[in-house]
Amino acid sequence: MACRGCLCCKFCCNEGETRTPEELTILGETREEDDDDDEILPRKDYESLDYDRCINEPYLEVLEGLNNKKARKYEAIKWVLVFAIGVSTGLTGLFVDFFVRLFTQFKFSLVGRSVEECSENGCLALSLLELLALNMLFIFIASVLVLIEPVAAGSGIPEIKSYLNGVKIPGIVRLRTFVCKVTGVLFAVAGGLFVGKEGPMIHSGAIVGAGLPQFQSITFKKIRFHFPYFRSDRDKRDFVSAGAAAGVAAAFGAPIGGTLFSLEEGSSFWNQALTWKVLFCSMSATFTLNFFRSGINYNKWGSFQLPGLLNFGEFKCLDGDKTCHLWTAVDLAFFVLMGVAGGLLGALFNCINKRLAKYRIRNVHPKARFIRVLESLLVCMVTTLVIFIASVTLGECRDLVPTLTNSSQGSVNEENSTIRQFFCYNNTYNDMATLFFNPQEVAIHQLFHQNATFSPVTLSLFFVLYFFLSCWTYGVSVPSGLFVPSLLCGASLGRLVANVLKINFHMQIYSGTFALIGAAAFLGGVVRMTISLTIILIESTNEITYGLPIMITLMVAKWTGDFFNKGIYDIHIHLKGVPLLEWETEVEMDKLTASDIMEPNLTYVYPHTRIQSLVSILRSTVYHAFPVVTENRENEKEFMKGNILISNNIKFKKTSVLTRAGEQRRRCQSMKSYPSSELRNVCDEQVAVELAEEGQDILQQMLERRHVPYPNLNPDQSPSDDWTLEERFRPLTFHGLILRSQLVNLLIRGVCYAENQSSASQPRLSHSEMTEDYPRFPDIHDLDLALLNPRMIVDVTPYMNPCPYTVSPNTRASQVFNVFRTMGLRHLPVVNAVGEIVGIITRHNLTHEFLVAKLRQHYITI
Amino acid sequence: MACRGCLCCKFCCNEGETRTPEELTILGETREEDDDDDEILPRKDYESLDYDRCINEPYLEVLEGLNNKKARKYEAIKWVLVFAIGVSTGLTGLFVDFFVRLFTQFKFSLVGRSVEECSENGCLALSLLELLALNMLFIFIASVLVLIEPVAAGSGIPEIKSYLNGVKIPGIVRLRTFVCKVTGVLFAVAGGLFVGKEGPMIHSGAIVGAGLPQFQSITFKKIRFHFPYFRSDRDKRDFVSAGAAAGVAAAFGAPIGGTLFSLEEGSSFWNQALTWKVLFCSMSATFTLNFFRSGINYNKWGSFQLPGLLNFGEFKCLDGDKTCHLWTAVDLAFFVLMGVAGGLLGALFNCINKRLAKYRIRNVHPKARFIRVLESLLVCMVTTLVIFIASVTLGECRDLVPTLTNSSQGSVNEENSTIRQFFCYNNTYNDMATLFFNPQEVAIHQLFHQNATFSPVTLSLFFVLYFFLSCWTYGVSVPSGLFVPSLLCGASLGRLVANVLKINFHMQIYSGTFALIGAAAFLGGVVRMTISLTIILIESTNEITYGLPIMITLMVAKWTGDFFNKGIYDIHIHLKGVPLLEWETEVEMDKLTASDIMEPNLTYVYPHTRIQSLVSILRSTVYHAFPVVTENRENEKEFMKGNILISNNIKFKKTSVLTRAGEQRRRCQSMKSYPSSELRNVCDEQVAVELAEEGQDILQQMLERRHVPYPNLNPDQSPSDDWTLEERFRPLTFHGLILRSQLVNLLIRGVCYAENQSSASQPRLSHSEMTEDYPRFPDIHDLDLALLNPRMIVDVTPYMNPCPYTVSPNTRASQVFNVFRTMGLRHLPVVNAVGEIVGIITRHNLTHEFLVAKLRQHYITI
Repeated sequence: MACRGCLCCKFCCNEGETRTPEELTILGETREEDDDDDEILPRKDYESLDYDRCINEPYLEVLEGLNNKKARKYEAIKWVLVFAIGVSTGLTGLFVDFFVRLFTQFKFSLVGRSVEECSENGCLALSLLELLALNMLFIFIASVLVLIEPVAAGSGIPEIKSYLNGVKIPGIVRLRTFVCKVTGVLFAVAGGLFVGKEGPMIHSGAIVGAGLPQFQSITFKKIRFHFPYFRSDRDKRDFVSAGAAAGVAAAFGAPIGGTLFSLEEGSSFWNQALTWKVLFCSMSATFTLNFFRSGINYNKWGSFQLPGLLNFGEFKCLDGDKTCHLWTAVDLAFFVLMGVAGGLLGALFNCINKRLAKYRIRNVHPKARFIRVLESLLVCMVTTLVIFIASVTLGECRDLVPTLTNSSQGSVNEENSTIRQFFCYNNTYNDMATLFFNPQEVAIHQLFHQNATFSPVTLSLFFVLYFFLSCWTYGVSVPSGLFVPSLLCGASLGRLVANVLKINFHMQIYSGTFALIGAAAFLGGVVRMTISLTIILIESTNEITYGLPIMITLMVAKWTGDFFNKGIYDIHIHLKGVPLLEWETEVEMDKLTASDIMEPNLTYVYPHTRIQSLVSILRSTVYHAFPVVTENRENEKEFMKGNILISNNIKFKKTSVLTRAGEQRRRCQSMKSYPSSELRNVCDEQVAVELAEEGQDILQQMLERRHVPYPNLNPDQSPSDDWTLEERFRPLTFHGLILRSQLVNLLIRGVCYAENQSSASQPRLSHSEMTEDYPRFPDIHDLDLALLNPRMIVDVTPYMNPCPYTVSPNTRASQVFNVFRTMGLRHLPVVNAVGEIVGIITRHNLTHEFLVAKLRQHYITI
Repeated sequence: MACRGCLCCKFCCNEGETRTPEELTILGETREEDDDDDEILPRKDYESLDYDRCINEPYLEVLEGLNNKKARKYEAIKWVLVFAIGVSTGLTGLFVDFFVRLFTQFKFSLVGRSVEECSENGCLALSLLELLALNMLFIFIASVLVLIEPVAAGSGIPEIKSYLNGVKIPGIVRLRTFVCKVTGVLFAVAGGLFVGKEGPMIHSGAIVGAGLPQFQSITFKKIRFHFPYFRSDRDKRDFVSAGAAAGVAAAFGAPIGGTLFSLEEGSSFWNQALTWKVLFCSMSATFTLNFFRSGINYNKWGSFQLPGLLNFGEFKCLDGDKTCHLWTAVDLAFFVLMGVAGGLLGALFNCINKRLAKYRIRNVHPKARFIRVLESLLVCMVTTLVIFIASVTLGECRDLVPTLTNSSQGSVNEENSTIRQFFCYNNTYNDMATLFFNPQEVAIHQLFHQNATFSPVTLSLFFVLYFFLSCWTYGVSVPSGLFVPSLLCGASLGRLVANVLKINFHMQIYSGTFALIGAAAFLGGVVRMTISLTIILIESTNEITYGLPIMITLMVAKWTGDFFNKGIYDIHIHLKGVPLLEWETEVEMDKLTASDIMEPNLTYVYPHTRIQSLVSILRSTVYHAFPVVTENRENEKEFMKGNILISNNIKFKKTSVLTRAGEQRRRCQSMKSYPSSELRNVCDEQVAVELAEEGQDILQQMLERRHVPYPNLNPDQSPSDDWTLEERFRPLTFHGLILRSQLVNLLIRGVCYAENQSSASQPRLSHSEMTEDYPRFPDIHDLDLALLNPRMIVDVTPYMNPCPYTVSPNTRASQVFNVFRTMGLRHLPVVNAVGEIVGIITRHNLTHEFLVAKLRQHYITI
């Protein structure tokens, strides 16, 4: 890696490895200034989602009332919601598609007519102005919408990927974002920018998934029904998975690809029930869209003829042609080469776009917001000029080849109707204008299926122009997808290869396949998705036999590209400083253990703590979770008598330790209650032994003995900075985790008891009271301290998570990583062999940058 | 559940719930006799696979030598192997397909000619005898092969499902099984039984996956190269996933379906890298098969025209027909009804087959083995007679509809050539014979695509005969798949529905779609697979628009069927007593905690133990893993002086506890080694404090204090039955897990030290020595005790797993289940808040039966 980096960092933006050991050591503790442009570290202000269930007492109360019937009802609600998400996403796609189609048709017919008139009268400047005015109007609207909600910019896939990876990004699943994104993308596409609507569709689907099951909105506070289900990060993330899958399904007509997309990005454990629902959701979205489009466009209500928004048409040989193959074994070799080319070009694209994005972060974003609008308008203007001038001056007139097929006449007619004849005589057409003066989907169709040829010069020029313009466009402040521009770019390249092979080498090939493979190679080189992209493309072609070539091309493109830099989405995630977790750690990371990577400075609470301590902890720290601990000190007996607070804590500690003998005794007791004689005998033996020694109660003594030395327990004293090392790092037995939001909730709702009362007198909160404010819990700074008696005591034990997953300090980094990522954890306490907490691991301790830094430190220490 | 059970257990074999509390209590402790026929409990003699990596010292030594370059080499080997697995599986499929085709063509042409001659001469008995003789010869061979290797019987899917679920089933991935299965299925299919070759293909693929990367075989001991990679359950299971996926891919031409099949069954965490390899493996298998079949059958080498072994042909409307739809929204309603019917019939099929299987287990299996051969021959004879008599007597002569398509003439010709005219005049054909006197794949094709009609009576008769015969056949001692018979059965039903709708209700429908949906419904009702089956069927039809109807049908069929009983594979797994883990636990199970379900009786070892104790523990128990523990007793200091063994154990205990203060000190030390002044200042502060108090060393005292009370530690004394409850359940601090195989390995290789030596003098084993004997480790009973000095001491700490995942006793059943299933664990220690082990959870403590029993006990105790 280091060697590769040296070789090519000059020209390919490889991640710099220039940090010094000192910087590395504090990596993650202080955020560095981004003066050096390759130094973007994961930011600490992103929160993790909490996918693990917190089974505390309020939850157990809910559980007690739960039987299988209610569980089935709950399950049924989920199915209905998932169906609703699918349908809504499908309808969103329909909405976008309908208006894009309307605006585009209006624009092209207006301008096209004007051009054809003007090609005789010589008033081309007028046509250009018409086009410019329309495009810039559309882009202005799109850009203003993004000003309203900045998260709506871009494709949204990096954000959704981050979210599914387990990172909360503020505002990405809000209703306002949805409105801005959907409307914005519509105008961005209609405005003729080189952007796709697929990424935004996925984002929209995810928002539908997040929002619909909540039956409330933060944007419109009045939308609020009583629907107390699914108020947890876990359920929300599941629904977001389904929604994102539905988005893919609607965009590409690829329900399986959508499901795999959300699995690939979601990456939690393979949850059969969830996957099944996600697939159903995707199918609903695809077929909702299909149903309405068939109805609206062809007036064939009830049939399902049109697949997703983007589809690649039917690849097939003419019926009579026996020598025609879609592809052969020989072609595979070319596909591999095209994969390499796609990988290289994709890496170049990503490199340029990364530099551009960094430039924007430094020079555009800090300035006034309208600068961004101006940038969008500039891009729009240049794009429009390029389109127009290239079409008018650089196109070649090519013969219209009469189509030989008698099948699928509808589509052939459609293709011919999209051919542009700018300045060309009858029976010829302008190949550049045909590509530029059409919606991008149509241009892709042309490249895949048009039998008539495009000249190599046109294709090369088209590719170059498109490459740079779309690279410039991605990152501008409009909602913009990257799939369609990449596909179109790659398809022109593929078609070029096909032309060369066909004409110069007289090979018997199917041009459409080469265009398709070119598209796959370039797209793969840019986005570096693997499984889901393969399947999305297979489904879009509706031809299973393309499986192998597409897969091999994508593999080669990914491997080639990965040699230089990361995929475009990962680059943008990295630029945002999102602490994304990769798929797995590198093998070398296993040289690190949990104790190497954990954060040993803990802020903790006691099971019973005074309100003043809690408030002080909550106000003075930013941690989202606190371990609930007890201390191991001597002279416990003394303190038990005096201070009810300390004695409560000590009592809790004792009762929370289950011992083997205690458990065995319990089991025997419960067996004794059975009538069966045989069983009783088994246990009686042991019980008899126990009873015989009851007088002295050795067992009890043994148990007690281990809890004797208890100590100067003073929970009033909150951890402060002037403690000595021993005080700060004294041994603490771990009992559970409590979240900041839970603590604040307890304080706000006045859950506490007075010193002279028993902890049983503390008011109890129900599960719905605990989760009512989800997802935006009140802040500690909103709390009115005057209402609280600081001497009251809060018993947090019923509300903490009593059994989070823990790891031992010797656990290797890969194992820690696996359990953290797979279980979707937010905090992972590190607990030693005698039950003391020694540190805590969060997402930030597992990012690639942090692990690399720690590994270097490890080598240096050795 | 209970209520449903009462309602329908009389007639639908619902799982009985008749266990009494006493029985329930000891469930899993003693295996009950299967007198009552619904009482089959998971057997305890199945071992779990160990998917979790054991990172002990030998592994760390390997790791030290590992850098990213070697890791990439290792990765490259994996890719090559995965490709090899795919190709081999494809070739296996080719082999089976080629010979089945050869034998079947030979048989049908011989008998067909004879029948056509005899229909004039009246020598039908002779034709029948010919057919009988051929079929019984084939079946005899298949049956004898299964005698050689009984695991080769049946479809193999239950076994592979169990394996991927994490259960070792002896012999299922051996080379001998492979040979018997592949050859056996070939003869079974050629012998005219109603069996498919798809299930066995999946099993064969899995064996290839398991065996190929090992480069050795237990069947042929001489096949043994030096290839020391992938010697662990983890790698093996990954390769088996890939192989099984390749099997599906080859069988159905469904690479995506295959990948999802192995994910659905494999169900570990979603491992991106693995999934990508599995998909590649599936693609390789599909296209290898495709390549050779295109070459051999059509002489078109280099093209890839024929998909998998089973393919459904092309569903398409005729070009001219504008009113034709493959399906419409209205049809969906019928598909739902067909799904219900499929579910009901599938449940009936499963019920009958379950009773039959139980009968076989009780009455056939205990008898001499040749009885099974006789049964196979009987089934064969009856099947042959039914086929023959039905074709001759019950078929109707139907008009041959001249086909209107001009497209795909090849396939039409093929279809016409498979029409049987038995006793029918020119331009008519015998519909029953057309279905029965053809390979099953051809019959499915006929039902899907033959425009000519089949009479409703024929279809009904065919369905009934096929239903009962295939139900009887599944479970006979031949390798036999269930997919194709179920598809054919369902397709006849679907075609029947289409006929009725078309003729009686004059609906405009596409018969092929109805046949397809019927096939899906019945297959779904029988096997109850969900995601993977949907995708397999979509891929087999190569028509993405069938996604929704297939999915809905399968959903409805599964839900309907699940109301009555489980899927056929699950039933057979249950009958075998395999402790399969479901997808997730029921919600109610969360009322149980880890302490409720764990096994509290532990057999444990100390870090340093005498050989005599180890041998006694290994010989007197059957556990596969032992916790490594130390005791908490007083007077430790005394013992440390006297006995080196005890002092070693105590020393180990101390060093194994990482404390917060210790860790902080270490971090400061390592920071001090940096030149950076700023950093040093941060730490110096703390170190200064520490140094100032160095004279008294309070910290050290604090650390020591907690280890003071130590005790009468006597590891020589192995746990024995006459101990008191206190002795048996005394507190034990948990430090790691060691496997039986590891202990035996240590003993055999003489890893130990004498009492007067230091434990550092113990010989060290390398990682390859530890794994050399994988997968069959030597048994303790093979050990020659005379070679061992029982007073020597073994230090197991370098070889144990020092950081297995653990859970706290309060962890809820669902969380325990998730971590166990997701991480692919074999043993999960339950450790309390002070680090003492209180129990251990294995697969058997998480089976549905065990949890249900524990839940009942829980309710009774309340």
